[in-house]
Amino acid sequence: MSKPAVVLVSGGMDSAVVLAIAREQGFSCHALSVAYGQRHVSELDASDRVCALLGAAAHKTVTVDLRSIGGSALTADIAVPEQGGAGIPITYVPARNTIMLSIALGWAEVLGSSDIFCGVNAVDYSGYPDCRPAFIDSFQQLANLATKAGVEGAGIRVHAPLMRMSKADIARQGQRLGVDFAVTVSCYQADEKGRACAHCDACRLRAEGFRDAGMIDPTRYR
Amino acid sequence: MSKPAVVLVSGGMDSAVVLAIAREQGFSCHALSVAYGQRHVSELDASDRVCALLGAAAHKTVTVDLRSIGGSALTADIAVPEQGGAGIPITYVPARNTIMLSIALGWAEVLGSSDIFCGVNAVDYSGYPDCRPAFIDSFQQLANLATKAGVEGAGIRVHAPLMRMSKADIARQGQRLGVDFAVTVSCYQADEKGRACAHCDACRLRAEGFRDAGMIDPTRYR
Repeated sequence: MSKPAVVLVSGGMDSAVVLAIAREQGFSCHALSVAYGQRHVSELDASDRVCALLGAAAHKTVTVDLRSIGGSALTADIAVPEQGGAGIPITYVPARNTIMLSIALGWAEVLGSSDIFCGVNAVDYSGYPDCRPAFIDSFQQLANLATKAGVEGAGIRVHAPLMRMSKADIARQGQRLGVDFAVTVSCYQADEKGRACAHCDACRLRAEGFRDAGMIDPTRYR
Repeated sequence: MSKPAVVLVSGGMDSAVVLAIAREQGFSCHALSVAYGQRHVSELDASDRVCALLGAAAHKTVTVDLRSIGGSALTADIAVPEQGGAGIPITYVPARNTIMLSIALGWAEVLGSSDIFCGVNAVDYSGYPDCRPAFIDSFQQLANLATKAGVEGAGIRVHAPLMRMSKADIARQGQRLGVDFAVTVSCYQADEKGRACAHCDACRLRAEGFRDAGMIDPTRYR
């Protein structure tokens, strides 16, 4: 029987590739999506399709209401900016990756799993502080202090296989692994049919990645 | 103007004392309760009364559905045990403190606050791994890597003022600070009116603490 892993799956292209990588490594993938009040709910619809197509053993969506704390263009009534600037952008969701990894850690404990996969990426990371290697290392250390698995068992490993890949590398990896990018939605403000805006940071980085890889991006724009 | 702090308030005796301590230290207390699917929902009603009585500047309850991952007597259909045993008990909620501190961290970032208070306690901790000093230290390190405040600002400090107190010390501190323990609910399976079972670990530890402190416990039993 293959070992269980918890894989954070958002519905975007990065986490779809992570899911494909975790499967290739032989894990039985328990996909976790987090409904945190994001304005782009079509991302969650996409996560269902991604999990079905890439053969996740299970898929759960856990709700955490981050709208109630606000503070980001992705969860509050603040416009999504149409071009990148210096510093940490307003699309940064306070503590989002910490919260999502924590929930993944909880499920990993319940499953008796020692492996958590996430699509955190330090190259095209838009300046988010919780997308750096030091953050992942620190979370892994915390996970091993926080849990039964860390105290009594084999310990927890946090995998971030995209950490040092460019968007073009991620597109190529996905192609190699047979990921159908047509089912993924990356846009921060995709409409209810999953059609992208073409202007936000996420759209821009994705389009550049496919172009640099010499691949056709199947994104549907509105 | 006093500095804002985020204080995790469950409605139990420990977090009520933490709130009183944070106020005594001059913080403007932004109380955070987390509705994680606990079976003892009267705990959340108690948190409203605790915040009102102890002068919290604000009080938010954030919902995160930990029932969907299960794995604990507090969130799944597993009986709450009536006496403590060896090892980590079934009332342990996987990654609960990690998740609650992560949400507190998100709110602290939104508020521009550098201070998070929690009622974690290593003495009467029932064997939970996420109640140890090393866990809090590790979370503080993570918080400083994960956030804008850590990267660009003054950094985040995680306060766990009860860490080395016995339950009797906590009761005495609360008495000194004027905490009305009659509004707090500690029982893992309190009924909808907040009446305690008298038999679970939480009830037992609370009763022993008041007895050791030579104080009267105003807990209402059913």
